[in-house]
Amino acid sequence: MEIGIVGLGLIGGSLAKTVQMHTEHTVYGRDLRQPVVLKAKLIDAIDGELTDSRIETCDLLILALYPDDTVAFLRENADRIRPGTIVVDCCGIKRPVCNAAFPLASAHGFTFVGGHPMAGIEHSGFDFAKGTLFEGASMILVPDPLVDIAVLEQLKTFFLSIGFGSIKLSTPEEHDHIIAYTSQLAHVLSSAYVKSPSALAHVGFSAGSFKDMTRVATLNETMWTELFLENRDYLAEEVAGLIERLQSYLDAISAEDAPALQALLREGRERKAVLNQKELAL
Amino acid sequence: MEIGIVGLGLIGGSLAKTVQMHTEHTVYGRDLRQPVVLKAKLIDAIDGELTDSRIETCDLLILALYPDDTVAFLRENADRIRPGTIVVDCCGIKRPVCNAAFPLASAHGFTFVGGHPMAGIEHSGFDFAKGTLFEGASMILVPDPLVDIAVLEQLKTFFLSIGFGSIKLSTPEEHDHIIAYTSQLAHVLSSAYVKSPSALAHVGFSAGSFKDMTRVATLNETMWTELFLENRDYLAEEVAGLIERLQSYLDAISAEDAPALQALLREGRERKAVLNQKELAL
Repeated sequence: MEIGIVGLGLIGGSLAKTVQMHTEHTVYGRDLRQPVVLKAKLIDAIDGELTDSRIETCDLLILALYPDDTVAFLRENADRIRPGTIVVDCCGIKRPVCNAAFPLASAHGFTFVGGHPMAGIEHSGFDFAKGTLFEGASMILVPDPLVDIAVLEQLKTFFLSIGFGSIKLSTPEEHDHIIAYTSQLAHVLSSAYVKSPSALAHVGFSAGSFKDMTRVATLNETMWTELFLENRDYLAEEVAGLIERLQSYLDAISAEDAPALQALLREGRERKAVLNQKELAL
Repeated sequence: MEIGIVGLGLIGGSLAKTVQMHTEHTVYGRDLRQPVVLKAKLIDAIDGELTDSRIETCDLLILALYPDDTVAFLRENADRIRPGTIVVDCCGIKRPVCNAAFPLASAHGFTFVGGHPMAGIEHSGFDFAKGTLFEGASMILVPDPLVDIAVLEQLKTFFLSIGFGSIKLSTPEEHDHIIAYTSQLAHVLSSAYVKSPSALAHVGFSAGSFKDMTRVATLNETMWTELFLENRDYLAEEVAGLIERLQSYLDAISAEDAPALQALLREGRERKAVLNQKELAL
């Protein structure tokens, strides 16, 4: 089939490479930065530029843009997308995107399915894109409740065929709620963690846990500010909850209350064991 | 030389295996759990049991016990350790251990150097021990200010010979201050992180950052409670500082203050870049 990818950053670029690596589909790409398009073409990540007229012939259109840009692109191009085309986005939040895209799609006769590939690294841009980024990852799909089940089957086949490990169906609300915890809170925390005055003396005094905690502090602050603010209700709840839990550890430490501290740590260990079990059961 | 290792848990067991893997030294080991000693002997992690009489012949004695047990072992065996023997511990905190051990060593004529191998995993016990655990890791040494420099040279040669990547000299205060941040805070946080009500729904909604944040929640709460409480001044300062920084992110999110949020995230990214530079410069 013909696949159009809009936005050739880390995610869009990696998807282009992944599709080329695994399939015989034709991939067209576009990006505001023309040198990126030329580079993608040069290394055969795309077969050609996704021009306006090619949007009309695409069977699958993947939008790998920031949330606001995703909605803006859909509004500007809704007339060009032919009925039958499936459009999937890649944004880290789903409520604002899906709430705008579902009615647009239904008014113009194409199909929009929210998407969120659960993979990433702490760097941005096409130069970091790689065809193995999504290997074994979960692909979250957030369809309109009225979606044709055949569309979901087609998307499932497609994403598994390019190396994703599993498909997860969700709603915009559920997605945004859980992602506030599993991804957004981790980024807030990593950013806050790295700023201790003690950090500058860490060399030689750190091992795996420090690397883990600070890895995603290397983030794209423009994108994450948008993601955080468009999900501020759920994210604020998670940050406040974490602060409250940290305070209970601090209280136990300050009071030298060994049994209380040990109980807090045991609860954490047990909770982590339950999560590990759930992952294994997948 | 003859090396005695006291405590064959994750760290002591891994050191035994590492020494056997890299050197021709003779390794004696002891552990309160006799089956562990037998198992270590069976798989040639040790050449024999470290009996009381063998303590006297050891050139190097490595203590891989909890802090209180380390000090207790030294008190009980100070008479058996011959002058000239170097004793190194492996505890995650250095003030209580060094403050007790330095005078003991000086009174009995042996040499005590505080040690902290900067490597670990989230599991405990001999069954998780491996000969590659310390590969490339930093070995922190905390000597008495009056130490003979030849002792440090000997220890440096030894630890580099078994695969450590570098040696870092520190004081008990500096060590405990920085470790409160690089290691202890990471463990508190991971434990607190995993307890969000949202955690139970994470499967399919998580990627690398979630795994990173929650890995060390699988901790040994008995050991960490002791480590945390014996370092409570520095650790409380770090937890309180993190809570304060998280609150500033929460305030920006709640106020929908995009410039403030973006500035906070940018500061974190820039700080992380400085740390990366410092690591490269090592």
